Amino acid sequence: MDVVIDSLGNAVDARVKQVVTSLVSHLHGFIKEIEPTQEEWQKGIDFLTAVGHMCTDTRQEFVLFSDVLGVSMLVDSINNRKDETATSSTILGPFHTADSPPRELGDTISLDDNGDACVLAGQVLSTDGAPLAGALVDIWQANGEGFYDVQQPGVQPENNLRGLFTTDHEGRYWVRTVVPRYYPIPDDGPVGSLLTATGRHPNRPAHIHVIAGAAEHRPVTTHVFLEGSPYLDSDTVFGVKQSLIRAAVPVDDPEVAAQYGVTAPFTLIEFDIVLEPHEVPEPHEPGATR
Amino acid sequence: MDVVIDSLGNAVDARVKQVVTSLVSHLHGFIKEIEPTQEEWQKGIDFLTAVGHMCTDTRQEFVLFSDVLGVSMLVDSINNRKDETATSSTILGPFHTADSPPRELGDTISLDDNGDACVLAGQVLSTDGAPLAGALVDIWQANGEGFYDVQQPGVQPENNLRGLFTTDHEGRYWVRTVVPRYYPIPDDGPVGSLLTATGRHPNRPAHIHVIAGAAEHRPVTTHVFLEGSPYLDSDTVFGVKQSLIRAAVPVDDPEVAAQYGVTAPFTLIEFDIVLEPHEVPEPHEPGATR
Repeated sequence: MDVVIDSLGNAVDARVKQVVTSLVSHLHGFIKEIEPTQEEWQKGIDFLTAVGHMCTDTRQEFVLFSDVLGVSMLVDSINNRKDETATSSTILGPFHTADSPPRELGDTISLDDNGDACVLAGQVLSTDGAPLAGALVDIWQANGEGFYDVQQPGVQPENNLRGLFTTDHEGRYWVRTVVPRYYPIPDDGPVGSLLTATGRHPNRPAHIHVIAGAAEHRPVTTHVFLEGSPYLDSDTVFGVKQSLIRAAVPVDDPEVAAQYGVTAPFTLIEFDIVLEPHEVPEPHEPGATR
Repeated sequence: MDVVIDSLGNAVDARVKQVVTSLVSHLHGFIKEIEPTQEEWQKGIDFLTAVGHMCTDTRQEFVLFSDVLGVSMLVDSINNRKDETATSSTILGPFHTADSPPRELGDTISLDDNGDACVLAGQVLSTDGAPLAGALVDIWQANGEGFYDVQQPGVQPENNLRGLFTTDHEGRYWVRTVVPRYYPIPDDGPVGSLLTATGRHPNRPAHIHVIAGAAEHRPVTTHVFLEGSPYLDSDTVFGVKQSLIRAAVPVDDPEVAAQYGVTAPFTLIEFDIVLEPHEVPEPHEPGATR
């Protein structure tokens, strides 16, 4: 191990050197602990190769691998230590798209109208309770069969169940959609085989993805999970936080339905999003060591 | 971390459970130590994806990744703790082929006759000094430009610089070839970028690959390295062992040349290979714990 670390050049970026040194140390620790046979090592090479070959523009098997090993949630928690009054983050997942289509408040994101009517609504607030007008709320979810649009090109309309909304003067947003359900992560690849081999199911509890951001506030990447969904206690990617679970309330009142531009009955999920103001970075003290 | 390990089912194969538990533990330890930003995590995902996409039937980028991190040599040393009188092992490398062509003793493996005449010769012996007749010696090497045949399909003849030889009644083998030279591992992919980023060169010192096996003996996967070659002290895959370095001796004597069916001058590399007898496994004692 030392001979590998010693091989790193002196002229290398300090962060690169730190990461590679740590990688070599922990990787050698892993190998020394399990003492793989040559055949097992070859199986590991073959597994990683299969994961790589499974990756396409719309399928990121290494993200799934990171997810099911709890690495994605660990990276998330490292990067989102913050005020407990703010909305917690959870993993991004592999199905976000960078160009979510802007939509008007109250628009539906369900372009194929396939599922039970649902409204997701709430207010984006600062940690002091002040509503954040003009905040951006990026929303995406799977359809009633558990697939995102990018998983079913040609089957689902493009940009189905995605939308970028802007909060009104009271910080409010409301979105028409369909009730999400639990679904398995794509398990027809090597990560699915890993789950099978380790006696794990591939399912995630019902959720809607949200990224919210506002001026002078830290954005949050999160989900709202549906109370009562199967797999809330065993999300295969370890994404659930209790603070992100909300009731999915059946609404029969036509007047409430009219407020959201839907007809009763429908399901209402209320999810307020609290953002933390950006901390002002402390000024560098001249001569201070890091 | 515990929540990931706890998710492993009870019905799982004990070895799979051990390996995945160790992987999760060391991987989380790595992540906690380096505290990657989301962007750095994404770079890691992108790197692994690029490594996977570089892998083809004739290019194994994950093996190169394992090699340059010293993992392949570590796995080799774990699997080859043996009698010090036997020939040491070193890494297989990614360019071995399963169907090395059988050749007669004294045949040349240089099918394009491109390079300086060389003879590799030696005796396969047991650790007690007894010659091993009928031992198989599988030999392969790069050409004078540092490429293996499988890296240059259509440029080099098929099975160039490869051959499977059988020792004579005195355990001797001799092979005509060309003098190997140092060469860079394939560095036009992500592993090459990693070497550059870490201030490392991609070179391996001059060597010939050997796998030798005989009845009732443990086979050895090894190289013979050429004394005086550049990079003997900084092999990028950490494969060099002092005990595997041999002189490449210039020979002018026509009589010696005639013995090997070549014309002087040529280069002679003498490499005896000592194999360890198979240990007889100890009988299981009934009721003994592992």
